[in-house]
Amino acid sequence: MAQHDAVEVISAKRDKAELSDSQIDWVIDAYTRGAVDDAQMSALAMAILLNGMDRREISRWTAAMIASGERMDFSRLSRRTADKHSTGGVGDKITLPLAPLVAACGVAVPQLSGRGLGHTGGTLDKLESIPGWRAALSNEEMMAQLEKVGAVICAAGDGLAPADKKLYALRDVTGTVEAIPLIASSIMSKKIAEGTGSLVLDVKVGTGAFMKHVDDARELAETMVGLGQDAGVHTVALLTDMSTPLGRSAGNAVEVAESVEVLAGGGPADVVELTLALAREMLAGAGVTDVDPADRLADGSAMDVWRQMVRAQDGDPEAPLPRARETHVVDAPASGTLTRLDAMAVGLASWRLGAGRARAGEAVQAGAGVVWHARPGDAVTAGQPLFSLHTDDPERFERALASLEGGYDIAADAASYQPEPLVIDRIS
Amino acid sequence: MAQHDAVEVISAKRDKAELSDSQIDWVIDAYTRGAVDDAQMSALAMAILLNGMDRREISRWTAAMIASGERMDFSRLSRRTADKHSTGGVGDKITLPLAPLVAACGVAVPQLSGRGLGHTGGTLDKLESIPGWRAALSNEEMMAQLEKVGAVICAAGDGLAPADKKLYALRDVTGTVEAIPLIASSIMSKKIAEGTGSLVLDVKVGTGAFMKHVDDARELAETMVGLGQDAGVHTVALLTDMSTPLGRSAGNAVEVAESVEVLAGGGPADVVELTLALAREMLAGAGVTDVDPADRLADGSAMDVWRQMVRAQDGDPEAPLPRARETHVVDAPASGTLTRLDAMAVGLASWRLGAGRARAGEAVQAGAGVVWHARPGDAVTAGQPLFSLHTDDPERFERALASLEGGYDIAADAASYQPEPLVIDRIS
Repeated sequence: MAQHDAVEVISAKRDKAELSDSQIDWVIDAYTRGAVDDAQMSALAMAILLNGMDRREISRWTAAMIASGERMDFSRLSRRTADKHSTGGVGDKITLPLAPLVAACGVAVPQLSGRGLGHTGGTLDKLESIPGWRAALSNEEMMAQLEKVGAVICAAGDGLAPADKKLYALRDVTGTVEAIPLIASSIMSKKIAEGTGSLVLDVKVGTGAFMKHVDDARELAETMVGLGQDAGVHTVALLTDMSTPLGRSAGNAVEVAESVEVLAGGGPADVVELTLALAREMLAGAGVTDVDPADRLADGSAMDVWRQMVRAQDGDPEAPLPRARETHVVDAPASGTLTRLDAMAVGLASWRLGAGRARAGEAVQAGAGVVWHARPGDAVTAGQPLFSLHTDDPERFERALASLEGGYDIAADAASYQPEPLVIDRIS
Repeated sequence: MAQHDAVEVISAKRDKAELSDSQIDWVIDAYTRGAVDDAQMSALAMAILLNGMDRREISRWTAAMIASGERMDFSRLSRRTADKHSTGGVGDKITLPLAPLVAACGVAVPQLSGRGLGHTGGTLDKLESIPGWRAALSNEEMMAQLEKVGAVICAAGDGLAPADKKLYALRDVTGTVEAIPLIASSIMSKKIAEGTGSLVLDVKVGTGAFMKHVDDARELAETMVGLGQDAGVHTVALLTDMSTPLGRSAGNAVEVAESVEVLAGGGPADVVELTLALAREMLAGAGVTDVDPADRLADGSAMDVWRQMVRAQDGDPEAPLPRARETHVVDAPASGTLTRLDAMAVGLASWRLGAGRARAGEAVQAGAGVVWHARPGDAVTAGQPLFSLHTDDPERFERALASLEGGYDIAADAASYQPEPLVIDRIS
């Protein structure tokens, strides 16, 4: 590998030059080895945030992060693979019904997930509310489960893109999270290293999403789709609304329960809609066009895969889910139509109730969360239950209630509610 | 002190906001204490470099760096004080004749200096070539010498602006040196903490200077003059040429010898011109207008102060200066007029001969350096000595000679030489 110097690379990006392939390869490798230190990398990250990178630079940056670790290889599997990534939202339990549904349609789903930080929940945190379920699998266990069951949701090992792991932790404390080239390469380096054959991205936009504005979300989506294409992974992105939380619950066990409803053929209409939209994209990406995933929800085959998935990771799909010790109900203050339910307000409330964590490594409460009894467009009557708040620590109610204040509107005039599409755009 | 958070402060500057006084006070204090780490400060430094700071922010930043350490106080001195700072150049020995000259005119000169790094020499490195001379003085020794001799050139203690010391070392390895707000506040925090009553800045511009372009030099000068005024220190800046090296020598002992020539009433015309220009500004800044410093060079009183200064710091002004073991002479390759002598080429040659250091803490050679036997405008004859290169290590000649290649022009046509003014502008 060609030798460079940290100040040379930082200065180039500071002065708005394009970084060469050789500079990018060197700086990622040197940072992973510790030859470039955190202070140098954070200066470079800020220069990238403010001066940008072009498509070639981002592709190379992503490839260098992949090269910092191991790559998984699913080519020995008897089935094609498809994966999904969501940029994170409130009530976003879609992975839970989606993975077994796509597997039931004949495509294998290797889903390496993370834990939540902040107001959006983590898929692993939700699944860990199932008694006995374990997130950590060896590569061999993962491969065996994929072959046998067709779907696996587990923790990403330390071997995938270690440069990204180190860089992400650094960006988190240096105000350099909000750089689209770095966000895109962080997500895509892990997904490409994971070895999926095709990928569908659910890029959220709205108050409860990381991207508040549709233009930013579109730029991120286009960047990631380009990275996938450059790496030979069939990649499609959907821009989906996250101004309203998904479904009727945000938390851990409450979202598992809602996911099981969807797998049983019921569940909230928006969760079903998004699950089917993403399932169709994943199947199409894997070249499977002759199966309608709605049929696999209706005939119970997706539920069968779910039960096998949970059991394969030592969980008991029949066991009662944990419930929080305390519940507080918020009644509707007026009659009319619920015209707005803010995703960030609900997400913060759920987080403050104990469903999420303030810093990496903290435990979360399995039973904590928020259930809302009406969705935008629904009629409500003064005094009816509007929210149920669940937590093991009743002292948490006060701050959770504060975050819900101003987080919804009830209008006497039903016509003032204008539904927005859930899927805003498709980028391929 | 108000509490802030590193990511909040970094994000504000990243998003082009002005930092509040409270944010600046907090971040400098927290960095000095270690509560803000190097990675966070380097991200902030890059954001400042790319997004700038306004005059209020830079003034507050400077004040916060001063507040991180001790401040010297010369108010008990019987004389007014004036100091000079140069942004660094090749052959820039001006401090050596200037400090005793201004003292001979009745104004005390407390000059805290540094060692060199890179192609520009350090004042302390030059003085340390005088047998016995020591740079480190206690505050009490410094004050006593100022009272008795009127001038002191010594090493800055660790107590002045420790935040600057820490930040400067960080900027050096993170590509964030070239930020005018940070350069200006670094220089001015030390000079203001040093407690001088008035200050003259020699801001160099040209190939051998840190600032290559006159617009950048002017912006730096204006920023520093503003900072001095905001802190109540009478401050004037001269923009001076550094495309040609000053005098006839660059190195350590060779520059001391040239300084002594100036103090004896001789020396190169440009060194005399700049010494007198800066002396007049320092005297005017201290309110002394009835003394012509040229008289004090002519009557030997400046030389008397020099000898006292050297002796007060255990040096022997009569002792022979060290000479390098090896000399290599470069002859003029053609006859004509020397029309260009590049400051960077000469500075690099001197550095490569051992007069400077590659990293902080290295020793320098007292006798190493370059002497040039013609200045731009002078007639030269093919075969006459043009440069004398001095070093203790003859293996250094090759790289030094390489740096001189292309560093000068000899033209048959004398009319092709257009002299440029040494003092380009004055900013107050």
